[in-house]
Amino acid sequence: MHFIIQRDKFVQSVQHVNKAVSSRTTIPILTGIKLEVTSDGVTLTGSDSDISIESFIPAADEEKEYVEVKKEGSIVLQARFFADIVKKLPGDDIEVMVQDQFATTLRSGSVVFNLNGLDPEEYPQLPKLDESRTFRLPQNLLKDMIRQTVFAVSNQETRPVLTGVNMEIENGILTCTATDSHRLAMRKAITESTTENLTISNVVIPGKSLNELSKILDDTDDLVDIVVTGSQILFQFKHLLFFSRLLDGKYPVTKNMIPEQAKTQIELPTKELLHSLERALLLSKEAKNNVINLKTLEGDVLEVTSISSEVGKVTEKIHCHQVEGEELRISFNGKNIMDALKVIDSEMVHIMFTGAMSPFILRPTDHDQMLHLFSPVRTY
Amino acid sequence: MHFIIQRDKFVQSVQHVNKAVSSRTTIPILTGIKLEVTSDGVTLTGSDSDISIESFIPAADEEKEYVEVKKEGSIVLQARFFADIVKKLPGDDIEVMVQDQFATTLRSGSVVFNLNGLDPEEYPQLPKLDESRTFRLPQNLLKDMIRQTVFAVSNQETRPVLTGVNMEIENGILTCTATDSHRLAMRKAITESTTENLTISNVVIPGKSLNELSKILDDTDDLVDIVVTGSQILFQFKHLLFFSRLLDGKYPVTKNMIPEQAKTQIELPTKELLHSLERALLLSKEAKNNVINLKTLEGDVLEVTSISSEVGKVTEKIHCHQVEGEELRISFNGKNIMDALKVIDSEMVHIMFTGAMSPFILRPTDHDQMLHLFSPVRTY
Repeated sequence: MHFIIQRDKFVQSVQHVNKAVSSRTTIPILTGIKLEVTSDGVTLTGSDSDISIESFIPAADEEKEYVEVKKEGSIVLQARFFADIVKKLPGDDIEVMVQDQFATTLRSGSVVFNLNGLDPEEYPQLPKLDESRTFRLPQNLLKDMIRQTVFAVSNQETRPVLTGVNMEIENGILTCTATDSHRLAMRKAITESTTENLTISNVVIPGKSLNELSKILDDTDDLVDIVVTGSQILFQFKHLLFFSRLLDGKYPVTKNMIPEQAKTQIELPTKELLHSLERALLLSKEAKNNVINLKTLEGDVLEVTSISSEVGKVTEKIHCHQVEGEELRISFNGKNIMDALKVIDSEMVHIMFTGAMSPFILRPTDHDQMLHLFSPVRTY
Repeated sequence: MHFIIQRDKFVQSVQHVNKAVSSRTTIPILTGIKLEVTSDGVTLTGSDSDISIESFIPAADEEKEYVEVKKEGSIVLQARFFADIVKKLPGDDIEVMVQDQFATTLRSGSVVFNLNGLDPEEYPQLPKLDESRTFRLPQNLLKDMIRQTVFAVSNQETRPVLTGVNMEIENGILTCTATDSHRLAMRKAITESTTENLTISNVVIPGKSLNELSKILDDTDDLVDIVVTGSQILFQFKHLLFFSRLLDGKYPVTKNMIPEQAKTQIELPTKELLHSLERALLLSKEAKNNVINLKTLEGDVLEVTSISSEVGKVTEKIHCHQVEGEELRISFNGKNIMDALKVIDSEMVHIMFTGAMSPFILRPTDHDQMLHLFSPVRTY
């Protein structure tokens, strides 16, 4: 194998595939990044067996030549060193050459690295997916949907299926849901599908995979093709493939958990509630339970309180846009509400309570594509 | 105690004194910040008994009123909560009021915090220092001198005196020295003294104190008054006092450690050597010894190499501005050299070698106020 490649392109690709590489893998070859060179260009692969990322750098496109291929071939290089090395090489180009016994030379400017490579034949093949169930989303929308749901997944391994985000498609609507059984985040979007009447359910993607995917997603509306099979999902960009395994198990049916009738309804500015909870949580961080108490008062006023027997007490009054229905006193995990408020981009939120002991709903006021559900906390 | 204070001023003062507060103190009252109010203004104090910081907010100055004092008095509030709370209060002003049993109310906008305070009588008094030995430095120069020496202190408690920076004044020249016995950093500056013919020696300030002080220092040339006594040092700014205890023990005499005759001399750009060492250290991080090898070649060229038996080898050639004297092969701890290069603001450095087994000197080429000394590493 022997090629010369434009440094910036190479660095970016290495950084992308390196996101899938874990130093804690039990499969030694997966500590490496695989490089494969053909006359078409260079393909890089990183994997921790849950997530696999493949990045392709074409030899040339309409605009420019990126790679000068001198000899085809492949090699696996230790990700930990290789990724740092290419980032710090001084020249505009990097020459990569494999000699006997996988000994690899990287040359750039007046710098030469001689690295011990690994046998590329040992590197596992990425799965070939059946593309019959495929849909499409703009990158920025997919990034938003991940940000607005993934924070609510469970971090407990007792119910593994809850550590993922569930995807469903019905009538052209994609719904992403995450819940740790105390709170639930749901986000909907219209999707374009290449398959007619595509219906998908119980496609549960590990939260960790989505967090890594999110780092690769740009803020553009370029479309991502999403291919779903029984055990894998593939996100397909221009020159980049992102594979994740799916979680086994039946995702809970969440539709009928959502109350429809409200006893008390509140409308108030997102930021005001967020900042008020931040202050109230300063004291409850001592107690570690994050319990915040809420009370409606006369004149559209909401009282937020939090008590720590050791440190003291905080009381805050918020003037709401609107308070409607029955008087209310309720306690909840303030951190959960804060997490949800942080991902809501709308200026105002609407909260729908169904009594002090029942779950309540938080939504932005300006669209109905998002919903957050919370269980209250019993305080005696 | 009862006063109303401008929020921004208060937040800044709290943040300053909070730098001295440690949550790991064994003296419970020192987990708090002391507030003392007189008709002149508000004084805040934080301390971990090694470092103490006192900040004063005047009731008013020529420009403006900062504090409305309603009743004099004092209180100690838990730093951990108090510092976060004042930062997050919503109003422009904060009202602070102490009632019975040290119960304290903070009020700002529509937010009320009731905090359990501590008895201010228990808080230790700061030392009153004899100001007979006082000198002066601009803040930005003091900040530079700290940055350019403190990184070289020892982090081993086996010789406690080496964990500090030694200050000496002779003939109006202040010299700061730090060494961990493998490397030494020295920085000189002309100082102004209020005492005639002030001579100071063996004033060893803990590195930790200087790191905290550095965070408070601004990039202005406002003068800092520095008061030295047998066991304490005081840095005196407008409205701020920073006390640190001094380290006991005799600081080693470093003057005669510095070689005067060179066998090989090199001059090269600071950044080029820095980047080259960064690359070479990528491989030695595996071995954890940071050993880098240097060799002079024909034509003012320097060869930098580093070898890791597991990962591979790196070789780099640097074109120097000048290489003079005997041929040289030497090995050293590359991380130590890198640390020094990072604090040198000059474009070019000059290295003076006295043989493969002797200490060598690194200096900027454009002034003689700074010197770095390193021991080589023996490699077989």
